[in-house]
Amino acid sequence: MRATVIHAPRDIRIEQLPSPRILQPTDAILRVAATSVCGTDLWDYRGINPVAAPHPIGHEYVGVVEEVGTEVELIRPGQFVVGSFFASDNTCPICHAGYHTSCPHREFVNACQAEYVRVPLADGTLVATPDHPDEALVPHLLALSDVMGTGWYAAAAAQVQPGMTVVVVGDGAVGLSAVLSARELGAGRIIAMSRREHRQRLARAFGATDIVTERGEPGVQRIRELTGGIGADAVLECVGTRESMVQSLHSTRPGGAIGFVGVPHDVEIPAAELFYSHVGLRGGPAPVRAFLPDLIEWVWEGRIEPGRVFDLELPLDEAARAYRAMDERSAVKVLLRP
Amino acid sequence: MRATVIHAPRDIRIEQLPSPRILQPTDAILRVAATSVCGTDLWDYRGINPVAAPHPIGHEYVGVVEEVGTEVELIRPGQFVVGSFFASDNTCPICHAGYHTSCPHREFVNACQAEYVRVPLADGTLVATPDHPDEALVPHLLALSDVMGTGWYAAAAAQVQPGMTVVVVGDGAVGLSAVLSARELGAGRIIAMSRREHRQRLARAFGATDIVTERGEPGVQRIRELTGGIGADAVLECVGTRESMVQSLHSTRPGGAIGFVGVPHDVEIPAAELFYSHVGLRGGPAPVRAFLPDLIEWVWEGRIEPGRVFDLELPLDEAARAYRAMDERSAVKVLLRP
Repeated sequence: MRATVIHAPRDIRIEQLPSPRILQPTDAILRVAATSVCGTDLWDYRGINPVAAPHPIGHEYVGVVEEVGTEVELIRPGQFVVGSFFASDNTCPICHAGYHTSCPHREFVNACQAEYVRVPLADGTLVATPDHPDEALVPHLLALSDVMGTGWYAAAAAQVQPGMTVVVVGDGAVGLSAVLSARELGAGRIIAMSRREHRQRLARAFGATDIVTERGEPGVQRIRELTGGIGADAVLECVGTRESMVQSLHSTRPGGAIGFVGVPHDVEIPAAELFYSHVGLRGGPAPVRAFLPDLIEWVWEGRIEPGRVFDLELPLDEAARAYRAMDERSAVKVLLRP
Repeated sequence: MRATVIHAPRDIRIEQLPSPRILQPTDAILRVAATSVCGTDLWDYRGINPVAAPHPIGHEYVGVVEEVGTEVELIRPGQFVVGSFFASDNTCPICHAGYHTSCPHREFVNACQAEYVRVPLADGTLVATPDHPDEALVPHLLALSDVMGTGWYAAAAAQVQPGMTVVVVGDGAVGLSAVLSARELGAGRIIAMSRREHRQRLARAFGATDIVTERGEPGVQRIRELTGGIGADAVLECVGTRESMVQSLHSTRPGGAIGFVGVPHDVEIPAAELFYSHVGLRGGPAPVRAFLPDLIEWVWEGRIEPGRVFDLELPLDEAARAYRAMDERSAVKVLLRP
């Protein structure tokens, strides 16, 4: 089969690899209907994470079940499914508490930018759609497998409730999905921090009521002006840098909360500053699996269109171009069709 | 009047000072019925906080209102009152959200280990008891002015709910109060971390179901053994050191939360570790004022006896001995009678 392999920073190739096979009786093999490039894939692409040896890449996927292992009971061949980037058993106490990405049996689902993919723990990881989707729904379903689930978790972790004022830091696909999530959770006011007009438009389409173009302390000042000098009830941090974390902390009112889903790189939080801020903080790799049943239903009903974050669609064979477009920020997010 | 003055580390004296006067029309003057030494007073006493010049000390108090300023409307002379160590207006949006210690008009209430004390923003800071209390209730009411309110905030910040398993790190007066708070919030299991038998007994009397004597990683291992390998739903961090914060983080289950009320000294939280832990974190100087109405009612009814943390009672004139006893840990907490 054809699969995307990263050889070194900025060296993305399509290669012929053996098709994946069932390795564990709990596995499923999917024929990938659509896959996409994630902001975290760019860490390898940009050389921030070292690429020790060439390896297949990609962790966002939807597709049709080709084959299941002997112990798979809920997922059946022929179903169209959405899955999370972390496999989970969905039966342990941690999954029951809604934190599937901390499941003791979790396993990263990799090598998804390909024609076929092996998904471990199929029953605990995959959720079938009500039927085979119309072509137009595929991007929206694909968005659920990572960015929309992650934006949702940011809003859930910050305990967004109806009527709240919410700030979203980061205008990438996750930040934009966080705007949409805040709207669905009933936020009264949603302030998106974005400098790029194209992304501002999408943020507004997703429910942003205000746009702040300033960053850092000037951005914090704008948030304070917009919130009666107090700060926002909830801030959704979707970047992962020290600057974005400090900006988030200074933008939150005492008693408010930050949901942080930008994977932190070399960030230390001064405990005394957090202490005196009275701000609550919760982050982590989003337990996307927990949210899939609701989110799939809402996509199916047409209530949400999270796939609008895909502003470029390419055949899988052009994966290298997809990475380049995201690296250069000429695209928010690229969908690939095998 | 007689007042406690700290001159230098380990140099506590009782001196004659002018009685406080109304300075602002929102002030009240109290005749102090009882006051106490706080763990944070020991920072000055031990020289951890520099003592630049001799100054009066103490921020825990109950007493009878002697006089009020012209703009005080709710508090009246003759009332017996409990107040927080931070004055607050109780009218701003931040106070309404329950975070009085972040009130923009907050003011530290100092010089309480004395015969009289001036309390700013009397209407927003003080809460009157239903009547003058019996002598036996005074320690319980005094405990509300800081340690019990702080223990309560730890439990509230960690979102303790009925049936939860709660770990309390720290067996000082705040930690013991946190045990009592977890019990009142319906925790199903309360694990107190304590090495000292006297404090273990009090922890059990306050509702602890388990005692763990190990600290650091061995302590974490014990918590994991007691919680099916997962960690506790909520951890109440009542110490403020790097070690206690790390221990708390490692003792909390994914999706659980830490309430931290130990004032952090030189603690940095690695954001990546917090991220992958899925643990929620909220701390701060306890907004004691928010909890006073309920806590006073429960003391009045005899439902809670938070004053049991006082295991030594001395006349104000022996304040130096009180500090020594707390510094040497021969007393958990000392009550002083002017």
